[in-house]
Amino acid sequence: VQVAALLFDGVTALDVVGPYEVLSRAPGFAVEFVAADPGPKRTERAASLTLVADKGLDEAEAPDLLLLPGGGGVDAAIADERVIAWIRSAHERSRYTASVCSGSLLLGAAGLLEGLTATTHWLRRDRLPDYGAEPVPDRVVRHGKIWMAAGVSAGIDMSLRLVEAECGPEVAQAIQLSIEYDPDPPFDTGSPDKAPPEIVEAVRAAAQRTRS
Amino acid sequence: VQVAALLFDGVTALDVVGPYEVLSRAPGFAVEFVAADPGPKRTERAASLTLVADKGLDEAEAPDLLLLPGGGGVDAAIADERVIAWIRSAHERSRYTASVCSGSLLLGAAGLLEGLTATTHWLRRDRLPDYGAEPVPDRVVRHGKIWMAAGVSAGIDMSLRLVEAECGPEVAQAIQLSIEYDPDPPFDTGSPDKAPPEIVEAVRAAAQRTRS
Repeated sequence: VQVAALLFDGVTALDVVGPYEVLSRAPGFAVEFVAADPGPKRTERAASLTLVADKGLDEAEAPDLLLLPGGGGVDAAIADERVIAWIRSAHERSRYTASVCSGSLLLGAAGLLEGLTATTHWLRRDRLPDYGAEPVPDRVVRHGKIWMAAGVSAGIDMSLRLVEAECGPEVAQAIQLSIEYDPDPPFDTGSPDKAPPEIVEAVRAAAQRTRS
Repeated sequence: VQVAALLFDGVTALDVVGPYEVLSRAPGFAVEFVAADPGPKRTERAASLTLVADKGLDEAEAPDLLLLPGGGGVDAAIADERVIAWIRSAHERSRYTASVCSGSLLLGAAGLLEGLTATTHWLRRDRLPDYGAEPVPDRVVRHGKIWMAAGVSAGIDMSLRLVEAECGPEVAQAIQLSIEYDPDPPFDTGSPDKAPPEIVEAVRAAAQRTRS
């Protein structure tokens, strides 16, 4: 299974590294990092972490699995015709076309979410109807070969399910054990339905400040 | 809080990117990536992901928080006197000295775990007594300013607790929400105590093949 993981400046690191850590451990999987302009890509936030895209999009024309992360740089990626054309074209031949977080907006911009329920980072749900999609709060959404994970850390859960679909439950269980994924979050505030309203509003307000 | 995250060839990507995604979102935190020889570092496994260390160890002499990841390359890092000397020296002035996964073996090699309980990736627990430490299966272990997380994904849980310790629970809750960390693993096999024995043995056998 040849995996092409898209990078761009302003990508959220964990969106793509969570799935990498899972998928790269599956037998027969090979993960490549690609970008419209290959080379070092600064990740979101403090921008102090650089991930390297080894290949251009033209060197990954027919991956079995497209992995589309999100992040503050996703709008610039959406505006890059090369990226959207690559997603459309690669999706025609892929076995899986998957997004994490606001990476689902890339699917939408490529016209792949028309009439579908879809998930994304909870702060970006209001963007999905622009692409004819109906936002749902689910952590993982699947329509045939299109898979979507909710925000950031949800890519780990989605990737384990992808491995299960491709390789069976024993392989996915072994990978979950090898990354010791026995989560023990300190709070139960990981979704807007569970967090106290004042925390939800604080995160929303901070995101709006960052974007303006 | 100035964070210095150590990189080396063969680092496990999620060991360091999980904490990065949490810590870089905390107000006043700045995360730098450092290495004995700065520049691109190939991560473990398929080695197809490259993370970039922007600075040398001599440019990060007094970080507030040392972050030491693990991975297949950790033994080479332990054998690098520059790395161990840096850990010892930086630890003298740090406010937090933290490891993820087999990164705790770096703490041990620096002489910081003598007489302490300690955690690491479950496959490496037998290495801890070499450093005078007593292995425990806990996901997060804390002794004063020394913090240790168990394997790979446990760094996310540890980092949220570190932010809670430094900034209070509201900030940590907001970060947990912003990375939508509401984990929903497909199986309950994330620790050797929970996984079926045949899965534990399969992962152990595969790790031994990789090392030999």
